[in-house]
Parts: sequence; C-alpha cells; structure tokens
Amino acid sequence: MLVAGASGYAGALAAFLIWRHPHLELAAATSRSEAGARLDRLYPRYRVPVELEQLDLERAAGCDAAVVAYPHGAAAKLVSDLREAEVPVVDISADFRLHDLSTYERTYGEHGAPGLLSDAVYGLTELHREPIRGAKLVANPGCYPTAAMLALAPLAQAGLADDVVISAASGVSGAGRGGGERLAFVSVDENFGAYGVEGHRHAPEIVQELGQLGSSAPVTFVPHLLPIDQGLLASCYVRLAREAGEQEVRSLYEERYADEPFVELVDEPPGVRDVRETNLCRVHVALDGDGRALAFAAIDNLWKGAAGQAIQNLNLMMGLPETEGLG
Amino acid sequence: MLVAGASGYAGALAAFLIWRHPHLELAAATSRSEAGARLDRLYPRYRVPVELEQLDLERAAGCDAAVVAYPHGAAAKLVSDLREAEVPVVDISADFRLHDLSTYERTYGEHGAPGLLSDAVYGLTELHREPIRGAKLVANPGCYPTAAMLALAPLAQAGLADDVVISAASGVSGAGRGGGERLAFVSVDENFGAYGVEGHRHAPEIVQELGQLGSSAPVTFVPHLLPIDQGLLASCYVRLAREAGEQEVRSLYEERYADEPFVELVDEPPGVRDVRETNLCRVHVALDGDGRALAFAAIDNLWKGAAGQAIQNLNLMMGLPETEGLG
Amino acid sequence: MLVAGASGYAGALAAFLIWRHPHLELAAATSRSEAGARLDRLYPRYRVPVELEQLDLERAAGCDAAVVAYPHGAAAKLVSDLREAEVPVVDISADFRLHDLSTYERTYGEHGAPGLLSDAVYGLTELHREPIRGAKLVANPGCYPTAAMLALAPLAQAGLADDVVISAASGVSGAGRGGGERLAFVSVDENFGAYGVEGHRHAPEIVQELGQLGSSAPVTFVPHLLPIDQGLLASCYVRLAREAGEQEVRSLYEERYADEPFVELVDEPPGVRDVRETNLCRVHVALDGDGRALAFAAIDNLWKGAAGQAIQNLNLMMGLPETEGLG
Amino acid sequence: MLVAGASGYAGALAAFLIWRHPHLELAAATSRSEAGARLDRLYPRYRVPVELEQLDLERAAGCDAAVVAYPHGAAAKLVSDLREAEVPVVDISADFRLHDLSTYERTYGEHGAPGLLSDAVYGLTELHREPIRGAKLVANPGCYPTAAMLALAPLAQAGLADDVVISAASGVSGAGRGGGERLAFVSVDENFGAYGVEGHRHAPEIVQELGQLGSSAPVTFVPHLLPIDQGLLASCYVRLAREAGEQEVRSLYEERYADEPFVELVDEPPGVRDVRETNLCRVHVALDGDGRALAFAAIDNLWKGAAGQAIQNLNLMMGLPETEGLG
Repeated sequence: MLVAGASGYAGALAAFLIWRHPHLELAAATSRSEAGARLDRLYPRYRVPVELEQLDLERAAGCDAAVVAYPHGAAAKLVSDLREAEVPVVDISADFRLHDLSTYERTYGEHGAPGLLSDAVYGLTELHREPIRGAKLVANPGCYPTAAMLALAPLAQAGLADDVVISAASGVSGAGRGGGERLAFVSVDENFGAYGVEGHRHAPEIVQELGQLGSSAPVTFVPHLLPIDQGLLASCYVRLAREAGEQEVRSLYEERYADEPFVELVDEPPGVRDVRETNLCRVHVALDGDGRALAFAAIDNLWKGAAGQAIQNLNLMMGLPETEGLG
Repeated sequence: MLVAGASGYAGALAAFLIWRHPHLELAAATSRSEAGARLDRLYPRYRVPVELEQLDLERAAGCDAAVVAYPHGAAAKLVSDLREAEVPVVDISADFRLHDLSTYERTYGEHGAPGLLSDAVYGLTELHREPIRGAKLVANPGCYPTAAMLALAPLAQAGLADDVVISAASGVSGAGRGGGERLAFVSVDENFGAYGVEGHRHAPEIVQELGQLGSSAPVTFVPHLLPIDQGLLASCYVRLAREAGEQEVRSLYEERYADEPFVELVDEPPGVRDVRETNLCRVHVALDGDGRALAFAAIDNLWKGAAGQAIQNLNLMMGLPETEGLG
Repeated sequence: MLVAGASGYAGALAAFLIWRHPHLELAAATSRSEAGARLDRLYPRYRVPVELEQLDLERAAGCDAAVVAYPHGAAAKLVSDLREAEVPVVDISADFRLHDLSTYERTYGEHGAPGLLSDAVYGLTELHREPIRGAKLVANPGCYPTAAMLALAPLAQAGLADDVVISAASGVSGAGRGGGERLAFVSVDENFGAYGVEGHRHAPEIVQELGQLGSSAPVTFVPHLLPIDQGLLASCYVRLAREAGEQEVRSLYEERYADEPFVELVDEPPGVRDVRETNLCRVHVALDGDGRALAFAAIDNLWKGAAGQAIQNLNLMMGLPETEGLG
Repeated sequence: MLVAGASGYAGALAAFLIWRHPHLELAAATSRSEAGARLDRLYPRYRVPVELEQLDLERAAGCDAAVVAYPHGAAAKLVSDLREAEVPVVDISADFRLHDLSTYERTYGEHGAPGLLSDAVYGLTELHREPIRGAKLVANPGCYPTAAMLALAPLAQAGLADDVVISAASGVSGAGRGGGERLAFVSVDENFGAYGVEGHRHAPEIVQELGQLGSSAPVTFVPHLLPIDQGLLASCYVRLAREAGEQEVRSLYEERYADEPFVELVDEPPGVRDVRETNLCRVHVALDGDGRALAFAAIDNLWKGAAGQAIQNLNLMMGLPETEGLG
C-alpha cells in the first residue's frame, strides 16, 4: 500500500492503520513537504518506523492500492496518474466526492481531472457498501457529512425528513495541520463558535447524499470549532414529514444499523469522548414531542471521519473483512 | 447588599461584583454549607476579604437589597422571608422565572411561595428594563434563555420566527459547584455531547419569553456540555415566516440593540472566548439563502448568564446607571 | 484472567487489554460498587461487552491469574485470599509495593496481609524482570515511581546520583475515579499546582527502589496536577557525584535501555502527548554544564503507570512475550 | 501614554490596562504588523475602542511615557529613540534586562543600544521599588524570573540558598502570538513537556538577580509548556546553606512580603488558576525535612509576568499609587 500525503493528520493515521494492519503492508509513505523525515518522529505515538519519501510515480504504480491524503485541489492530478497506472485509490480529499462538476467548481474551484468524476464512488461505507466493493476510485467522505448522514439516513430513506438543521461541532484536527493563528492554542482554548456560516464546503456533499436517499429537504448546516483535538458531533434537528411515534422512528434506526459493525445505536446522546480513537459512529435519536426528530451522531473526525473510514473502504476494495485492522 | 448563597459560582461572582462596585456595599455574604470559610479562600482570584456567614434573617432584613443564589426550590422560602421584610430581591434561582404556576410545577416540582409569582419581573434586562426599574422582586433568567432570547428577540418581535431550533452549548460552571462524576475533569475533558434532550428546564422560559414578544413558534431547544469552564453559545436556526432580505433582518437587530450597553452586534459568528469574564452578549445574524435565519449569541454564563445580569438588574432597581460596576 | 475492581480507570483498562489480548481471556471483571453494569457502558471506547460482577471467590480461585485494581488498603485482603487459592496476582494497589512493613504503615496505615509482603516482587519490569518471571505476587508500581525510576536508574546504578529532585506532574486520571470537587472540571481546567508537598505516598517507593540500585541519595519528590486526563512527566534534577561528560551519561542510558521494548531514549525532552495511550516510557537526559544531570521520563499514567505495566508483568508471569497485547 | 507593539498579547493587555486606568490616558497604540486594525476587533474582550497606528516618532515624543512591547532585539532601537526624546519607557522586551553586555550578546545576539544598558533599572518591582520610582527606563522582567525571584528572594537574601533547582511551567500565551505548529492547538492540547533544556534565555536574568541579593548559588532552570492559555508556576527546590526550621523560613517570607500589595503568602501550594487575570503572585514555602526548602510562586504570565507588572512600574515612575488600575 502507498499512502501519499502521510505527514498530515489523516495521512499519518492512514499510514499507521495500514502499518499495523494484519493483511496490508505499508510499501511507502510520501510527503511533499517533509520527505526525509521519519514518521515516528512526526507522530511518535504511532511508532511507524518509516521514512517519508518524495512520491515516485513509477514505484507508486507498482503498489496494490493507494490512499491519497493531499489537500483539496492537489489530489486530483495524483489520483489521475495513479488510476492511469491502474492503481486502485481511496482519495481522502474532496476532489471526487461531488458527482456534479459544476457543484464542485462552485465549491472548490477548477477540477484537475473532471473525466474521472464519474468513476468515483462516494465512500460513506454504510450507504454505498456494494459499489465500494467493486470500485477502483473511492472518494472518502468529509468528516461532517459522515456524521450527519449516519444521523439522518434512516429518516431520509423513510421519506420522513421535511426540513433539516445540522448544527455540528468538530475538534481542531479536522482542519488539518498548520492553520495559523486561527488554530493556535490561545485562539481555540476556552473558545467555541460557529464558522463557515456563509456556506461550508461540506454542505453540497450532504445535499447530494440526502438526494441519493430520495430526500430533497432543505438543509441548513453550520459547523462549530471545539476546543478538543479529535471528535465530531452532528446534532440534527429534523421536521418530520408526517406524524411518527418514538418507537417507529427508533425502529427505523435499529433496522437500518442492525448489521453495521461501526454504527452503535445508543439510548442517550453520545459524547465524542466515547468514540475517541475508534472507527465507531454512535447514533442516538429521539422525538421532541412537537413533530421534530433529534438525531445525534458522534465520531472521531480522524478515524471514521477520515483515515479510519479510508481503511474500511480499502478493506472492501481488497476483498478483506471490513473491520480488519480497525479493532 | 446581602448575597445569600455566596459559596456557589454565581453567588461568589455576585459577591465579588458588589464588593468592587463603586456604589454598593457588601454587607454580608452567606452560605448554608460553608459558613465560617473565607470567600477569598474559596475563590482566591476575586480577593473578597469576607467571611461567609450563616444567614441571619434579622440582619438580612436590614439590608438595602439582596441577591439570592440558592438552588432551585430552596430559594422561594428565603425570597419570601426577605420580601416580607420589604427587602428588594434579585433571585438567581429559577423559582420566580415562570409566570405560570403549573408550568413551574411541571418543570421543577412544588413551589415554596406561589403567592409571590405574580410580583416577580423576569430579569432579562434588555427585554424588561422598565418593569425591572420598578420591581421589588426580579427573577434573574437562566443562562440559556438569556443568550437564546437575545439572539431571537428581534426576529420574534417582527413576527418573523416561524419555527425555531436552538442548539446551545455551555461551559461546565453553568451546572454549578459539585455535580459529581458527570462533571469530573476526566468526564468532560475532550468531550462534547447533548444532554437534557428529553426536555431541559430552560425550555419553558424561552417559550414564555417568545410568547411575550408575540411569537408562538414551535421551539426545539437542546443544550450541550462544552469542555470549558465559562462561556455559552446559543446557535439559533429560525425558519422565517415570510421572505426577508439580509439587510432587512440585520436592520431589525441594529435597531433593536442600538442603545444596549451590553449587546454587541458583530459581523462574524461570535466565540465565547471573546466575552469571557464580561457582561457582554455578542450577537450575529445571517440568512442561509433558503428562508432560514441563523442567529448566534455568545455570553459568559456566570456573568450575563447569571451574576453579571443580576448586578445589571440590581443597578436598575437601585436607580444606579445600568453598567455601574460591570466595566 | 480475572480483573477485580474493573470499574475504576486502571481496572477498566486492564480488563480491556486482557479482553483484546491474543493469548489471554477475560474470565470475569468484578466491581464492588457497580456490579451489574456493563463495562462497555461505563467505558464505551473500550467496547468490552462484559457485565461487571460481584466478586465470587470460588470462581476467582479457578482463574489462571488475577489483576487486582482495588484502592490501597482494600486490596491486601483480596490478594491474600487469591494467593491462598494459589492464583497468581498482579496487584495494582500500593499494598505490596513497600518491602518494609513499618514504612508501609507510616505511609498508608495498617496492613491487611503483612505476611505476604516478603512474597511480593516490585513490578517495575525494567528493573526486576527476572524475579517477576518467577513471581506469584507482583506489586505493580505507582505511576510516579515508574517514570521517576526509569529516568533515574542509569544514574543511580552508576553511583552518579548525589542529590535528587523529582518535580513531577500527572493528568487527573492518576487520582482515580471520583475525587470530588478537587478533581471537578472547573477546579482543574486552566490550573496547575503542586500537591502532597508535605510528603506524597509515592516517595518511599522511590527511595526503596533507588536503594535497591545502591543509591542512598536524598530525594525530594513533588507531584503537580495537570489539566489533562492521561499523561505523566517526571522531571528529575540530579547533582552528580563526580564529574561526568554528556557522552558518558548518554551512554549509560543507551546501554541500560538498549533492549527495552517499552523505553525509548529520545534526543529532545519528551511530551506526554507522544506516549498517550501507549505503554511507552520516553526518556531524555542532558547535562546542565554545572554538575547536574536533567533526566525526563514521560508515560501514560494509566498504561505504563498502571494497567499497561500490569499486563507487561502478567505476560512475563504467564511465560508470554512481554509485549504481547500491548502494541 | 503610548503602547508600542499593542497587537501582541502583552502589548494589548498593557493598552487595556492603561485605557481603563483612572489616572492614565491611552494616547496611542501602535503595531508594526496590524496598523489600521481596531484593537477591540483583535481582542474583543478588552473592548478598547482604538485603532492601531503605525508608530510616529514625533507624536510618540509628545507622550508622557511609553510601554514598549516589541520582540527582543527589535525594542532597543525604539527605546533609544524614545529616550532621546526624553520619554520615560517601560520596556517589556528583554533588551535592557541584563546589565552585562556580553551576557546579553551571548543570550540574544547583538544589542541595538548598548549605551543605554546602564540607565535601565530591572523592573521586578518588589526587589527594586526605589530605583524604579526614579527611573526613566525600566526593563520589565521576564515572566519566569518574576515568579522564580519572588519565590527565592527571601532565602537568597538570608544567605540560605545553597543550590537551586527551578522547575517552572507556563501557559502558551507566554510565547507570544504566532509561534507556528509548536503552539498549534493540536500540538499543545493534552501535552506537557520541558523545553529550552539546553539553556533558556531567562536563566541569566535569574542568576543576575540572585547575585544582586548576594547569592552565587548554582541555578538549574527548566521551563515546561502547559496546555493552558495564561498562568505560570515556578517550583523551586533549594538546598539550604545551613539548618533552618520551618518557622524560621516562613518568618523570612512573612517579613519580606508583609507590605507587598501583590504578593500573597499562602499556606498551601498555589494553583495558577487562583491568580488568573490578576497581578498577584501567590507564594508558598515549606521544608522537606531533609535540608531542602520548597518554594512555589504562581502568577499570570501576561499580568504580573508582563503587562501587569509594566503598569505597576509605570505607576511608580509617574508618582501614582502602585496598585492603581490593577484592582
């Protein structure tokens, strides 16, 4: 396996998860900015005794598969090169998440490999497991869409979501390494506030995926920054399309997630601490007695929200058990 | 001035604000559980060189006014005694916030002095300034209702609020001293989650106050616990009753808060760190382009959400400038 | 395997480590206060699908070995019962750490099973590996002594430690569950201070172990409380008994720890974040140019400082590879 | 008053303290990097309604006094210009703290105005109050030396300090704004470690000031980075020059600090939270029964460790009561 972009938070975790994986081998971990550095020096806790390299396309072409963890915009070209060499790819960037080119361009700017868009499968495993199994290019979802969609899917699928508010909050690692003064300790400590109110780039992903489930409900999505390192909560407030009882709604979730290894239905609102450093998504749903469902989903933004789900998808693409290496 | 219940977070801050107030004098600070202890030992930072006493009703009766910071349920009896002695009272507890007895009883249980309910003025200063000036019993609002109402009032008053979601989050001091394992450091650190989903006690306050502004919009209110000590954010999502432009909505807020000394309209979503240890409420409003207004209000839950607003109200009751001692 | 006292932080982690261990089986996890509760409800992140039981000595007697995670004082009786039934025990409490009964009594009070003291091997694995292999009762070290001794051992063994100051700091989980207001979030957040200045109970352990290495240097040990959940740093300042060069001192450490799987010598002072959720101890040593060595050791107080080292010892006692299940 | 460099943490707090000062007026606040920005936008909490300006030496020359909060190295030239214009200066940088030029150059590099070194008074108010009163150039101390010297002074002055270890820890704001990845939230959160082990720049200040008190004891000083924003603790371990009793040592401190408005002797080790946002230094001293004194001093690094002490000194230079504006 190749991990491209392994000096960032998500890439480093992907490299670690592959390195300790019982059935995968970490062939190379590359970094554009920190080639030459050892991964176990940048991330001592993971203890991956590997030196970061400059990407060498020829060597990359020899890998069984690749996880690309480049920033948005920078990934498309590399993914295109890897696909040309017939290397299966899980792309953690946003470059192949949106099926519609014009939506992508409005959200992120020009696309580096628009011809590949139609090949990509959106990698929210629980929603697209079968296509992922057969895919050669999986677009790993954003952290917010992962939590929001797992909270909303049963309602959307049942045609019950009439109007959706997603008030979400993420730890700082969700913004990636670097980040300057906005993400400096003194700025974040003892703070909490919304951002991206004018339109966060994860909103079109959520709309696309709700649409896939047959829902065209209006969606308001507002992210907030939490003074923690890892953890993401999506608090979803859904005006129901028709009257529904608590038991009916709970049953929808129970049925939907009965066989999901990484989704846990819980009977109290989940805290992000409970899923820290796991690939779990803990979901809770309740009714407010006034025609609104409250659905909460907690994940670790670096695991289920990024690198963990990437390995979950990679397992499927390689024909391995989905949970392998994620215990 | 008397502060009853000065060993708790809100009471101690009230004692401090009175002690350093240029025109008020701290006659006594009482505590049921820690009489005999010095306040500057329990709260070194405030440096109030005063010994906590057992409440002596006779001495209390001689005070010009009292701030009561007892827990809900325990306050009513003392407030009643103080009012009998004609001492003006600001009650920080919830005991006199709800005008409707049956709503109170459904929310908190039996009431210790129901006959006084009709005397109490709800102390959200910006909404009830004139009645507060003449009041002898002010029911200081809850921390969540304070932020939520300041975020929502201009929309509610204009008849624009059709459906309201309040997704709010507070620092741990909002729960008061003690609290056991749920509020232990290890439980709260690196955590974030909703609580009180089945119905938080502050919801009826918000409904009551929206009603006072002529709004009967359905309200969903969900609080979350933040891993910080002080700070509260109300993120409000309001389906508008009719089409309205961004400029129109902003103007409503500008006009409403033009002369408010403690409300600041800001052009980005506020962070709670920006109002820490102040009596300010920072408000931001925006439209999501889809018929929904997003209104955010950030306060320090111990200041504007409790003791700060108590002094703001006390100033009005005593005929002092509203901002005195809160600079 | 039996874990007794699995509702506390250390016991729960021990249960988790055994549960996921490739060669050990978790036969039972007991709790005096929370029998009946499920472990994966108290500690969702560990996902151990086991119900906590009341201890049943008969069943316990049938276990291959036991980890006891009772509080100091309460452990001795149970350990005694288990040993009577010939069950090998790793005791995480302090009850068998001090070889000298009168030192124990001065530090902790009466001892519940003084006759067993001489059977116990002090379980700082890196210092007592061979005796641990053959032991039936291992007294797992305190978290502070673990870090301090790993920082100091090479100097002490070489006869270089003349005068020792240990200024240490631990995250809150080191104090165990509960803890009341001193460990409430609002007390710990944004705080840092020394405690136990009049004599912390871990000091005699350190003196004992330095003595075992031939050092009778005076020791000053002061712990501090950090606003984090897991992590412990021992900063040791050692007046050298004779002149020694940086290279000589470094070599002592390199030789001493060359083959240690869980000790990493690093060339910068270690941060506790780098060992979070690992069984590692990262050690750095430097000279200050004035006859003093500075030695730092960072561990996770719940892992290498408690449950992780317990499993490390258990592996040895069971004849398993020392690192098994701790990767 | 002029504050030069008011966009940094210390400069902004100095501007705030002057702006709210009853007897000082904030004539101008300058910034090299953020001229044009409003101070109440950069630091909303302080609410200083002032626009940052480019420094205009002519206007500066008309000010009664100036606080310079430039980085080390950059301050000397400006201080020199201001002094040429006969403006009294409190310099928060390190440029004039060390009396000895060669020590300065070894520590910081070339000096921009060495001729002024002999004019500067070291501004640790409690140690040099009288010279400060008459000074035209006060070198405000570093944050670590402030706490360390207040912890050590009574012992040093009594000739009791034979060998000194200072294990200190500071919140992140002590490193100033910016700071890059080392001070990013994700790097600092849940972390704790030593830095500057090879020789921190504050060490020569401490040696100089101990020397002034007649002590030439060897000093080991190691700072650590705390995951908090404001707060600094110096834990000092002092081998005593002769036997001394606890009462004798305590008396030294009581006498030394009896009349100090900002030093509080406390009977338990102080926590930094207790002095947050105050100009206080809380000091505790104890003996370890083995010939070593333990002395702890807690300050807020931005207040008593920087801007607060600057105003304390400014008050003295202007003939005002020392505590004015610092309540």
